[in-house]
Amino acid sequence: MSSQGLTSPKEDYSRWYNEIVYRADLAAQSPVRGCIIIKPYGYELWEGIKNALDSRFKATGHQNAYFPLLIPESFLKKEAEHVEGFSPELAVVTFAGGKELEEPYIIRPTSETIIGSSFAEWIQSYRDLPLLINQWANVVRWELRTRPFLRTSEFLWQEGHTAHATYEEAETETLQMLGIYTDVAVNEAAIPVVKGVKSQSEKFAGALRSYTVEAMMGDTKALQSGTSHNLGQNFAKAFDIQYLDVNNQRQHCWTTSWGMSTRMIGAVVMAHGDDKGLRLPPRLAPYQVVIVPIGRTDEDRAVVMESVDELKRELTAAGIRFHVDTRDHQPGFKYNDWEMRGVPVRLELGPRDVQSGSVVTARRDVPGKEGKQVIPRAGVVEHLKQLLVDIQANMLAQATVFRDANIHDVQSYDELKQVVEAGGWARGWWAENAANEAQVKADTGATHRCYPLEQPGGQGVCLYSGEPAERVALFSKAY
Amino acid sequence: MSSQGLTSPKEDYSRWYNEIVYRADLAAQSPVRGCIIIKPYGYELWEGIKNALDSRFKATGHQNAYFPLLIPESFLKKEAEHVEGFSPELAVVTFAGGKELEEPYIIRPTSETIIGSSFAEWIQSYRDLPLLINQWANVVRWELRTRPFLRTSEFLWQEGHTAHATYEEAETETLQMLGIYTDVAVNEAAIPVVKGVKSQSEKFAGALRSYTVEAMMGDTKALQSGTSHNLGQNFAKAFDIQYLDVNNQRQHCWTTSWGMSTRMIGAVVMAHGDDKGLRLPPRLAPYQVVIVPIGRTDEDRAVVMESVDELKRELTAAGIRFHVDTRDHQPGFKYNDWEMRGVPVRLELGPRDVQSGSVVTARRDVPGKEGKQVIPRAGVVEHLKQLLVDIQANMLAQATVFRDANIHDVQSYDELKQVVEAGGWARGWWAENAANEAQVKADTGATHRCYPLEQPGGQGVCLYSGEPAERVALFSKAY
Repeated sequence: MSSQGLTSPKEDYSRWYNEIVYRADLAAQSPVRGCIIIKPYGYELWEGIKNALDSRFKATGHQNAYFPLLIPESFLKKEAEHVEGFSPELAVVTFAGGKELEEPYIIRPTSETIIGSSFAEWIQSYRDLPLLINQWANVVRWELRTRPFLRTSEFLWQEGHTAHATYEEAETETLQMLGIYTDVAVNEAAIPVVKGVKSQSEKFAGALRSYTVEAMMGDTKALQSGTSHNLGQNFAKAFDIQYLDVNNQRQHCWTTSWGMSTRMIGAVVMAHGDDKGLRLPPRLAPYQVVIVPIGRTDEDRAVVMESVDELKRELTAAGIRFHVDTRDHQPGFKYNDWEMRGVPVRLELGPRDVQSGSVVTARRDVPGKEGKQVIPRAGVVEHLKQLLVDIQANMLAQATVFRDANIHDVQSYDELKQVVEAGGWARGWWAENAANEAQVKADTGATHRCYPLEQPGGQGVCLYSGEPAERVALFSKAY
Repeated sequence: MSSQGLTSPKEDYSRWYNEIVYRADLAAQSPVRGCIIIKPYGYELWEGIKNALDSRFKATGHQNAYFPLLIPESFLKKEAEHVEGFSPELAVVTFAGGKELEEPYIIRPTSETIIGSSFAEWIQSYRDLPLLINQWANVVRWELRTRPFLRTSEFLWQEGHTAHATYEEAETETLQMLGIYTDVAVNEAAIPVVKGVKSQSEKFAGALRSYTVEAMMGDTKALQSGTSHNLGQNFAKAFDIQYLDVNNQRQHCWTTSWGMSTRMIGAVVMAHGDDKGLRLPPRLAPYQVVIVPIGRTDEDRAVVMESVDELKRELTAAGIRFHVDTRDHQPGFKYNDWEMRGVPVRLELGPRDVQSGSVVTARRDVPGKEGKQVIPRAGVVEHLKQLLVDIQANMLAQATVFRDANIHDVQSYDELKQVVEAGGWARGWWAENAANEAQVKADTGATHRCYPLEQPGGQGVCLYSGEPAERVALFSKAY
């Protein structure tokens, strides 16, 4: 146990994760099976991710729309692989308005089907293409095992759905959106994800090809953090999404879909957290700075609070998100509490600091005395701005070093087993084969995460089958 | 029929409304009973309303959170009036994950119950109060008769839920949020709503008292556009929401709830639309300005588009939302189309305008030649900024004149009937009485909309019962 009474992540990572989620007030348990309540601190984190995504979607010509929550059961059955993939997880509405329904409705597990049926109506000619739509929504997947943020019966996400005239345009779109997910993960969440393409057995139900961004968590397990699917013409054929081309010929569209969800909150917790608790990247932190005023007497407190009021005005004007902790607790309790809640910078201010015209800052990413600095009061805003940039960069650097130290090149199946056993990602030549993948999973618990887009080039020998292989793949245990 | 082939609102208001909603591309019909698809143009309008509300909620200390979509059936039954009010409209999930559920889940029609049960766990002492939470969510109410935006089986809204130590604080909160709804309606949507309190028969199921903002639509019917409820201790008692006060005594909290929904999109359509179609207030319009480049030859078009590109840079820098219509249609078609879609300002630019260093602007709120102006190209941004402010003010003024001209003071039931028959709101002294209200509704189709907060003062005689009355009430037909 750490000083906060937290389970150590080295001791029991899973328990540590749950403790952080609830004690840092990101979420609360709910009376609904497999569902959590996203509390304000967690929701603000989500709003940060949401705004980062939404502005990038709009900058690339996408528009938001909203489609019904409930999907007629028959719609889901139109794409064979799709229904097979989702049917075990569906929640079904059979009664509404006091009557049994003639056709049950499914609560959307994802919206390809209902959006596909609309696209079929909206698209007439090549002039209507590309159609670039995004939806912010809740979805329900009745999973057997759930974990807060990582896998919940209901979750929040965005799902993009686009239609194009050609395969090439759809593929370009799919990769563009993967690029946006990478940008948000790396530059906002400070998580150095690996871009890759899924194997055929791991792809989205109904897709031609699924791309993914895979993140390494603090226990070296992988977390699929966002996916972008080239759906080919599968949904266009199932839902009759056609357009008249320039030669007045009817053609099926090429469609894509892509999503990122509240799972990203879990990714932030596990990519950055340590034995003191959460560590939030400044660009997403609900509070970038917490101010702890110190003073034992009423007189001291009055002097300090006058200075804090000035500080508040300066920080507000500078657009720095902050919180002043005026609770009736000892400073030490507050330091521990905000460390546990992951606030990037703590600013301590006591009567002697006011007198000497200084403040004390403490960085969450650099523990102990090394992270502390005494700063002249006059330059505090500029100092904080730079400090937040530095912390963001340092967190990304730390996570990148950790990731790279835990990806190991393997030549043989034995080596893969050793890497997975010791904790880490194994990278090796792989000849696509669903049965072999299944065997690796059964033997080691590790799954084919992706073929990274960045490849060594050339050809190799499959670490499992010995067949010639065109690409290296990543294998690891995953959430 | 108007020049756009639209039904005239005077001829058939209801048909006109539906035509606008679909032809202006605010929404599309969906395959789900009573549900619409909110298309990008409608969703951007919603985003405008949402941002206007959200920033005001945050500025008054509220925080966003997210609670489960599905509510255990037993929760809904804990507050007797509440379940009675909502039970005919519920959608019920009976199967999930391939199995029949032991206890069915209700898709939230509103979240007082599930949020109440959480508040009971989260609140321990007076230090936890007030608790000020808002949720952006979808809700489902299986209504018999639905109309796009005004009443749909699923809709989007925000629902605020707060808990307080005293009755007075809860009442202050309830009125504060009513004030925010009024501010957004008046100053963003240009709709001069009337603030009032609902009669006991019209209040929210389970509330002590419901406040409302009532808007007058173009056919003089009323639309309840936002409500704020003082829930008293009803939900606190049903869900055991208690706190320890400063004397260490357990007390029940006083709670409130308040909501505004996508219904506001319908309010904007009906408060401002005319026989040419939609008219959008500049502060909410997805496009504040539409630029129509004019040119018959390739050479002309090249000259014009060069100027348009400059304009785009200037408008972007000025934060003006605009769209350039480069479709292969005649200018006249485009003018009609954007008039129908309600864009506040049209900017026409042809080769002769480029040559003479001018542009032509046309206001949507002032029809015909009077609304057209030739403006020097150099001052166009400043001109547009002022024009948008003027249009916003003029639309509010127009709607206020219309509202005031259609509210009539009545002394007797006969006068009330005449007013309602002719189309308008009747205002008269009213002694609260549920049976009398029901009779008025049965006789005239008009409902008790509210007791306006602004009262003439003094006492009067009830227009229906002849009893002494303390307040005047508004009666009218409503959506």
